[in-house]
Amino acid sequence: MSTPAYTELFQRHQRLHRLGHLQSIAQWDQSANMPPKGNEARSLALAEMGGLLHQLATEPQLKSLLEQAAAENLEADQRANLREMGRAWRASNALPQSLVEAKSLANSRCEHAWRAQRQANDWAGYVENLREVVRLTREEATLLADGTGLSRYDALLDLYEPGMRSAEVDRVFGDLRSWLPALIRQVREKQAQETVIRPVGPFTQAAQKALGLDAMRLMGFDFEAGRLDESSHPFCGGVPEDVRMTTRYREDDFLPSLMGTIHETGHGRYEQNLPREWLGQPLGQARSMGLHESQSLSFEMQLGSHPAFARLLSPLVSRHLGEQPAFEPGNLNRLLTRVNPGFIRVDADEVTYPAHVILRYEIERPLVEGEIEVEDIPALWDAKMMELLGLDTRGNYKDGCMQDVHWGCGLIGYFPCYTLGAMYAAQWFATMRRAMPDLDARIAAGDLAPVFDWLRENIWLQGSRYETPELVRRASGETLNPAHFKAHLQSRYLG
Amino acid sequence: MSTPAYTELFQRHQRLHRLGHLQSIAQWDQSANMPPKGNEARSLALAEMGGLLHQLATEPQLKSLLEQAAAENLEADQRANLREMGRAWRASNALPQSLVEAKSLANSRCEHAWRAQRQANDWAGYVENLREVVRLTREEATLLADGTGLSRYDALLDLYEPGMRSAEVDRVFGDLRSWLPALIRQVREKQAQETVIRPVGPFTQAAQKALGLDAMRLMGFDFEAGRLDESSHPFCGGVPEDVRMTTRYREDDFLPSLMGTIHETGHGRYEQNLPREWLGQPLGQARSMGLHESQSLSFEMQLGSHPAFARLLSPLVSRHLGEQPAFEPGNLNRLLTRVNPGFIRVDADEVTYPAHVILRYEIERPLVEGEIEVEDIPALWDAKMMELLGLDTRGNYKDGCMQDVHWGCGLIGYFPCYTLGAMYAAQWFATMRRAMPDLDARIAAGDLAPVFDWLRENIWLQGSRYETPELVRRASGETLNPAHFKAHLQSRYLG
Ligand SMILES: [Zn+2]
Ligand SMILES: [Zn+2]
Repeated sequence: MSTPAYTELFQRHQRLHRLGHLQSIAQWDQSANMPPKGNEARSLALAEMGGLLHQLATEPQLKSLLEQAAAENLEADQRANLREMGRAWRASNALPQSLVEAKSLANSRCEHAWRAQRQANDWAGYVENLREVVRLTREEATLLADGTGLSRYDALLDLYEPGMRSAEVDRVFGDLRSWLPALIRQVREKQAQETVIRPVGPFTQAAQKALGLDAMRLMGFDFEAGRLDESSHPFCGGVPEDVRMTTRYREDDFLPSLMGTIHETGHGRYEQNLPREWLGQPLGQARSMGLHESQSLSFEMQLGSHPAFARLLSPLVSRHLGEQPAFEPGNLNRLLTRVNPGFIRVDADEVTYPAHVILRYEIERPLVEGEIEVEDIPALWDAKMMELLGLDTRGNYKDGCMQDVHWGCGLIGYFPCYTLGAMYAAQWFATMRRAMPDLDARIAAGDLAPVFDWLRENIWLQGSRYETPELVRRASGETLNPAHFKAHLQSRYLG
Repeated sequence: MSTPAYTELFQRHQRLHRLGHLQSIAQWDQSANMPPKGNEARSLALAEMGGLLHQLATEPQLKSLLEQAAAENLEADQRANLREMGRAWRASNALPQSLVEAKSLANSRCEHAWRAQRQANDWAGYVENLREVVRLTREEATLLADGTGLSRYDALLDLYEPGMRSAEVDRVFGDLRSWLPALIRQVREKQAQETVIRPVGPFTQAAQKALGLDAMRLMGFDFEAGRLDESSHPFCGGVPEDVRMTTRYREDDFLPSLMGTIHETGHGRYEQNLPREWLGQPLGQARSMGLHESQSLSFEMQLGSHPAFARLLSPLVSRHLGEQPAFEPGNLNRLLTRVNPGFIRVDADEVTYPAHVILRYEIERPLVEGEIEVEDIPALWDAKMMELLGLDTRGNYKDGCMQDVHWGCGLIGYFPCYTLGAMYAAQWFATMRRAMPDLDARIAAGDLAPVFDWLRENIWLQGSRYETPELVRRASGETLNPAHFKAHLQSRYLG
């Protein structure tokens, strides 16, 4: 079958993948290894590459190649790949190269400065860089929205969760808002009766790292195709062939790093198990940010905070950190399911986490739409933290609106994905339990293979073959249904 | 002053520098971090970037831009930069793509087979591949020599040491040859009387790494602009703004890693101190391979094996590896200056090392010129090893002419740089001592700043502003003079 236009597009995407590989590794290195004086040159190099990739993704021939390929005789997967090529093309061609380069430079600068500024609680310094990032992000959103009828915010949201709209987020988050504060109160009352033994530190970084590596092995991470390092903001980067996970360590508490590592392992295994024969092509990529988060939360929350899972984790903890009463499985699970409203999103428990996301969504949406300005963020943050979690963050930028670097990196429209992911994850496990009624017994017996097999088959190996709603329907038999998340929280925390 | 062509060239070189930055970091990562399953994707990514950089360096407009810029009104540094742009352009454009590809194929075939062939002492197998590499290297040399009036060998030598000619190498190596074998005998006789205490291992990798980092601090490495990691083949990579040094550790002996680290620190500081305002341009690059080696050998040999330096090193060694009689300064210096003719170049001491290089030069020059053929190598090797070092290598290809992979990789014309570097280093220190008669006392007092200041001013900050002979003359007041190297060896080893 002769498919010259499709074949040409296929080769161009291989090339983008190869050059993007160097960019991904250099970005990981920037966070995990790079000394401070390397930052300016690195930012310029990444901006240059960003511009080059944008140039390759916007070459004029692509439009007619996509049109010609649509008329070629393609197999189903090729046609799906072509659909994703078109999606990538539309995303890339909305923005002029000058904007792509300016964004890359502004984001790198803002992120780099943030490291020291956050330590110094220096909002005044940070806002100077953030203002420019937001200005460019609004410009990007306007161009993305042009001609689609989408609002500026929806145009950004669509980049991370194709097909998702703020109206839908409003509905789902509105539902959450209607029962979450009450649920938090109920859980807090129930847990007030419980005795929980705190682990006694300090825990050396070396011991925590060894524990984290063992947890990654338990979760099936392939160390021949990836590694674990440290960075101030943990992430899962690199390329599917070589996944670069990072974490950070606190000597006084090992759980944030341990559970963060298990979380990133979920991202990492998704990447490591994408369809190999499609790597380098749009079809070979992870479906969406929300889907990605559904994997990390399947690992961290659905499995990691499962009462039976604590029996698998407990011996690992004792092996690396010594014997302590706190490490007993029942207590370990109580520690992991302790609900405690706090300042920091990444340290938040499963129940209060959605409140952090709702808060950010309620700030970033009007921020992009131009209804508020960066100067308004702290006051809004303070008000919403008090309203949703009853916490006072006034003057505490470090643990308030400067805790995340997302906005400083121009990553706006992304936060909802965390809670969408939590909902998808609850839906996956509800589906698994229908198919395997003994699932919880198998987890208790240390047999995690059924979970990994289900995820590999239904999510990982699907790549971007289907659009999100279709993937969700094929995997679980229905579209996104927040009832599963509610049932999960009620069963785990009030059951 | 309007200089449109020069400005255009300037911007194109900035772009090459930025993209090359990502390539350098990814290459470093491949050696220092990358898990095995990442290799195929990484190799494809680096090859893609290599092709892209070659394409950018051979764009047809460059020729006329260079011609136009030559007629523009440029300042002295700009003109020097343009001269170096021209050099880079000629190197990239001398060879047709077909030859570049044939060379790359032949080199990797030869190198790959060499790994097993060397183990098996299989000269007959190796020579089959080497013949093709030499044939293509002669073809390359012919094209590089075309129209320059250079001989084929000189055309290759000029790639690594701009301005150096084999007539000059003949002169300095001829001088060296006239006194080196006798000097080696004298030193051996003198050292036969000495008692040297061997260090007692094992030495943990962690302790050796901490020692190496302290040695780098002593040598002034800027850890805000670089780092030290591990790889199986130590090198100094990265970019001037972010130098990535590597070393490897042997638990039974700490000196190879320690002195290797000090050696690479010399390369690293050269890169870190290139003229900042010219970074990204050819003028901002290190001058040559020989000059680079003159920095690593200034650190490793001129300073590192200086009797007074042992008094600075000894407390560092004891701090990290514990107290041992072997670590006493006098003994440490005897260990570092032990002369012992051996088969292997990379294990050779300061005094016998030049013999290994002279031998290779005396074979590779006539080989490229077509005066001998690959079949003649073993007999020449055997004769010269006996003549220069009194060692019998007959039939021992593994530790003889198959020990280095340089020729098999098509790297011919490079070997002289090692000993030119040693000679330059001796010349720098002779110059410093004329200007600062108390230099050795200052080294003994731990004051290394005068050395670093001199190197920074005379070598590092000069970048590629001058061709090598001119740089040498400006730095030391004369052209390369082997008498300084002779005086250095006599003073250190027979004094
Ligand atoms: Zn995540
Ligand atoms: Zn070197």
